Amino acid sequence: MADIKQASFEECLQQLMNALEASLLEEAGAQLDELHPSEVAKLLEALPPKDRSLIWPRIKPRVQGEALKEVNEDVQTQLIDEMSVDALVKATEGLDTDDLADIVPNLPETAVHSLLLTLDYKHREHLKKVLTYPQDSAGGLMNTDFITVRSDVTVRTVIRYLRLLKEMPVDTDKVFVVDRNFNYLGSLHVSTLLTEEPEQAIMPLVSTEASKPILANTDEAVVATLFEQRNLISAPVVDEHNQLVGRITIDDVVDVIRDQAEHSVMSMVGLDEEEDVFAPIVQSTKRRSVWLGVNLITAFIAVSFIALFEATLEQKIALAILMPVVASMGGIAGTQTLILVTRGIATGRVTTANIKSLINKEVSVGILNGICWSVVIAVATFYWFDDVGLSVVIGIAIIVNLIVAAFFGAFLPLLLTKLKIDPALAGGVILTTITDVIGFVAFLGLAALVLN
Amino acid sequence: MADIKQASFEECLQQLMNALEASLLEEAGAQLDELHPSEVAKLLEALPPKDRSLIWPRIKPRVQGEALKEVNEDVQTQLIDEMSVDALVKATEGLDTDDLADIVPNLPETAVHSLLLTLDYKHREHLKKVLTYPQDSAGGLMNTDFITVRSDVTVRTVIRYLRLLKEMPVDTDKVFVVDRNFNYLGSLHVSTLLTEEPEQAIMPLVSTEASKPILANTDEAVVATLFEQRNLISAPVVDEHNQLVGRITIDDVVDVIRDQAEHSVMSMVGLDEEEDVFAPIVQSTKRRSVWLGVNLITAFIAVSFIALFEATLEQKIALAILMPVVASMGGIAGTQTLILVTRGIATGRVTTANIKSLINKEVSVGILNGICWSVVIAVATFYWFDDVGLSVVIGIAIIVNLIVAAFFGAFLPLLLTKLKIDPALAGGVILTTITDVIGFVAFLGLAALVLN
Repeated sequence: MADIKQASFEECLQQLMNALEASLLEEAGAQLDELHPSEVAKLLEALPPKDRSLIWPRIKPRVQGEALKEVNEDVQTQLIDEMSVDALVKATEGLDTDDLADIVPNLPETAVHSLLLTLDYKHREHLKKVLTYPQDSAGGLMNTDFITVRSDVTVRTVIRYLRLLKEMPVDTDKVFVVDRNFNYLGSLHVSTLLTEEPEQAIMPLVSTEASKPILANTDEAVVATLFEQRNLISAPVVDEHNQLVGRITIDDVVDVIRDQAEHSVMSMVGLDEEEDVFAPIVQSTKRRSVWLGVNLITAFIAVSFIALFEATLEQKIALAILMPVVASMGGIAGTQTLILVTRGIATGRVTTANIKSLINKEVSVGILNGICWSVVIAVATFYWFDDVGLSVVIGIAIIVNLIVAAFFGAFLPLLLTKLKIDPALAGGVILTTITDVIGFVAFLGLAALVLN
Repeated sequence: MADIKQASFEECLQQLMNALEASLLEEAGAQLDELHPSEVAKLLEALPPKDRSLIWPRIKPRVQGEALKEVNEDVQTQLIDEMSVDALVKATEGLDTDDLADIVPNLPETAVHSLLLTLDYKHREHLKKVLTYPQDSAGGLMNTDFITVRSDVTVRTVIRYLRLLKEMPVDTDKVFVVDRNFNYLGSLHVSTLLTEEPEQAIMPLVSTEASKPILANTDEAVVATLFEQRNLISAPVVDEHNQLVGRITIDDVVDVIRDQAEHSVMSMVGLDEEEDVFAPIVQSTKRRSVWLGVNLITAFIAVSFIALFEATLEQKIALAILMPVVASMGGIAGTQTLILVTRGIATGRVTTANIKSLINKEVSVGILNGICWSVVIAVATFYWFDDVGLSVVIGIAIIVNLIVAAFFGAFLPLLLTKLKIDPALAGGVILTTITDVIGFVAFLGLAALVLN
């Protein structure tokens, strides 16, 4: 397998695009044959849709299957739509149950039916089991290939059993110990098998505390935290009756962590982490529209407050020039607090228990920064407009806005979380509306008082 | 070990804060003794600094060491500052070399000296080796506990050797095969040892292609990508002479991935992912100030363009009321594109090879959204101000600003990357300055033409 790092992803993509441009499909296909499926997936995501369609049929079915599970949902849908039922079955029949379970909901019904026929009874039952759990739960993340042993055997028996199996599922750092009813009892580290004497009974070696099973309906975010905190490679999944139903491995958890990270950035501007960067223009336009619409409404709300001070603005046009400065400083300061607190909540470090201390701290920072910057802005305003009244007014408005911004930046994310609204998605819009309104009202209102 | 999920982190923190409030230090300490060090670290980060100081001396040295490596840099510095040299040595002497290497740069010199004296020759040499590499490189991430075997032995010999060792380092999914000069030859999966017959020679079992070594000076971001793409649990690290120097394990890579994610969110508003949420007020104020200062300059640049149209504004005050709408719609639309492209660059999916297609697509989306929203805004403006000229002017300004926003949103991140400037940090500020200026100039400029 060629190492894409040495050739550099960029060159690789360029070569592929050149080959496709020149209709050298054979060459392009040969280039992809050299690569790891996850790298093929990345290249597919980086290609414009029409190039994807050209190259896709040239990729080997096994690699297609692996690539399908790696690409984002948009690209997955495009590629599946372009495949025949026959090709789909060929591509997906070799996949792990958990990966298959991710793809199945997006497959056409005829393909699912044909696919199920290719599976033996055991695999079909496994797949059905995984599909009964939500995709973003431990049950949706788990795969069903794991090794179980009984508790009353010796190290030698286990090793003999493993030799009979000839192969272990990937990422097997432990085998699971079950009773005759498949109830989960504990885990046995593979390394223990190698370091202990063959005659040793396994029961004293089995760890129960450190490898507690995960309930199948546990949310994937909680699973990720557990893996991170306990440095797990794999973990057993049980149903509500403590029956062992599956195994989650670190590679799938890493994907969850990546997706969470993407989500927290993308949702700040109303984007979806599963979006294809090359999504069709009309589709992209529609998706972006929603966010622009929400922001248009908030913008009109904010400017309607300016309209209240029309008479004041007419008297002094400098107010119109400077008012965006007051609004923007509040927006920036507030967003700093908002992001700090939102991330704190997402990582669990900020809760109702410590929010009071945090609001106190953030408001204090707001007061200090408000004072500092109000002086700077007042002086700058004086140099520009040579107007003491205006300087004083903008200085006070800045202090007010920075304090309000700090308070709402800290308070809003927790409030939204309690209301079950994603603060990463809605926090920024609401906060900047608040800081805009406060900025305009404080600045123009004070000006109205001073001028009249 | 108690499972913090069951008690819920929030309750746990509340209990701890209550105990500290009531000066029940013994009880608080006992509560922490029950927890996993990574959970202790999380609680420490969630406590206000004065509570941290109270509880810290009550924590067992071994847990202190593990917690020190987990907390963010700000909190680490606070805790280290409050410890005696003796306490520091006790806390850190049990740590892995890679974790120690992360802490050592923040320790006072006397503590480093004492700490080195507690290490045996081998560990001291290991630590020195890790410290020669930058913290954010493969060399800085690696630890030095791994198992090596020679290539000319059988499975039985390796297993016998492992039984002699009695224990394997955590996350050992493979042992490394080296020649007599410690040159890296390949890796042997632990699972292979369990499934193959004892008489089997290991050489045919050694994988070389799939477990290529990582050069010690490789950037940690590249390491993370490699782990993700190849689903690695551990990987060998070699120096420039192919000598095996260390081993990177997935738990450290997961930390890198989390930190990258935090960085990409935090840097958008000039924050540092290593910042303590409860950092001292003056320190926080200073750090936030820089960003507010940069934004103040860009705000003044933007409004200086408004000043050019003072005469026009005086004629029609509705322009002053509506101009923030034009600027904000451009800012939002541009930021959507900016974040999409910046994330694409960060994950390697957007490069110079495909940027042209992407700019075309984004500008097309900008044109479509520009047309849609310009109609909506023009109609809304007409209903508000009953002024056809004003409606037409704002409609055109919106189209212009959304197209410009889409172009710069797509083009800017790649330009900044080429200039070695972090687009996540600088992109937003530059882009909103552009969309503000274009918004003001297009709207007020057109109005000036139409009105005069």
